[in-house]
Amino acid sequence: MATRAAAATLTASTSSLLRRSASLRPQGLRAPHRVPPQRFVHHIASSTNEEAAAKAASATADTGGPTIFDKIIAKEIPSSIVYEDENVLAFRDINPQAPVHVLVIPKVRDGLTGLNKAEPKHTEILGQLLYAAKVVAEKEGVANGYRVVINNGAEGCQSVYHLHLHVLGGRQMKWPPG
Amino acid sequence: MATRAAAATLTASTSSLLRRSASLRPQGLRAPHRVPPQRFVHHIASSTNEEAAAKAASATADTGGPTIFDKIIAKEIPSSIVYEDENVLAFRDINPQAPVHVLVIPKVRDGLTGLNKAEPKHTEILGQLLYAAKVVAEKEGVANGYRVVINNGAEGCQSVYHLHLHVLGGRQMKWPPG
Repeated sequence: MATRAAAATLTASTSSLLRRSASLRPQGLRAPHRVPPQRFVHHIASSTNEEAAAKAASATADTGGPTIFDKIIAKEIPSSIVYEDENVLAFRDINPQAPVHVLVIPKVRDGLTGLNKAEPKHTEILGQLLYAAKVVAEKEGVANGYRVVINNGAEGCQSVYHLHLHVLGGRQMKWPPG
Repeated sequence: MATRAAAATLTASTSSLLRRSASLRPQGLRAPHRVPPQRFVHHIASSTNEEAAAKAASATADTGGPTIFDKIIAKEIPSSIVYEDENVLAFRDINPQAPVHVLVIPKVRDGLTGLNKAEPKHTEILGQLLYAAKVVAEKEGVANGYRVVINNGAEGCQSVYHLHLHVLGGRQMKWPPG
């Protein structure tokens, strides 16, 4: 049963992320990382899809099964890596919501399917992730204007159950933040 | 000159935050912390104001002068405190953008006017802030659905130059995140 549940989680997460990426190609690493701002004026369809994906993903969230990020960490799926160290990997979101949109994740999930699973022992990796987000913004040239976002659960719009920070910049971010 | 610059920063930050709070009263601590969801349907005016406030605040951001948060930490201005420990203070935003909207700040700024000023030595407090955000979400009853947001600089919509995390929940968060 556990195996089947894990497989179901991987399928749900993978289909969610891949559904958003008709353009996931081996040459993805060479794709331009700046997308023209006009792509970001209206997001009605994106918003609806992301909420639906988050709702679907939450159904199997607590199984702790593998996610699409495991394949990205293992380099079995290509990604456009912005920053990497012993503990953290940062790569560009395949469905960017701003000219700069990078995901920052712990290489070892250690139970952190979401921020709500954080325990005191996770404080160190949480700090490393947030510091990496700052480094990513510098590397992407948006050090002085960006937003860091963590979604938790369906109402938070979380669609992959491996803790990840979004770093968004390169355009004026609005208020409220979604 | 340094004194005048610091005073200007305090004035800018204070007027920015107070402008958003016609309702900042001594009895603020007794205000209901849940606001009906219908308040959060449209935010065009709020968005415009916040962007303008962020732009104005950025002009004096790097002076490192005092901000409104110093008075909140010193309890010279009342706030609705949700969580507090030796290093971190969390209190409800006076202009909430969701039924639950709490700010999490370091009690000692230590140069962290924004996330972009983070150095490796700050990793510990960054982790403590993010862990506190998780604790706040639990305390506010939104552990399974919320969003954590950090704004940096004018394009990130930052209006107070003392690092702070927003914890928002109690309604469906949208995508993109602003």
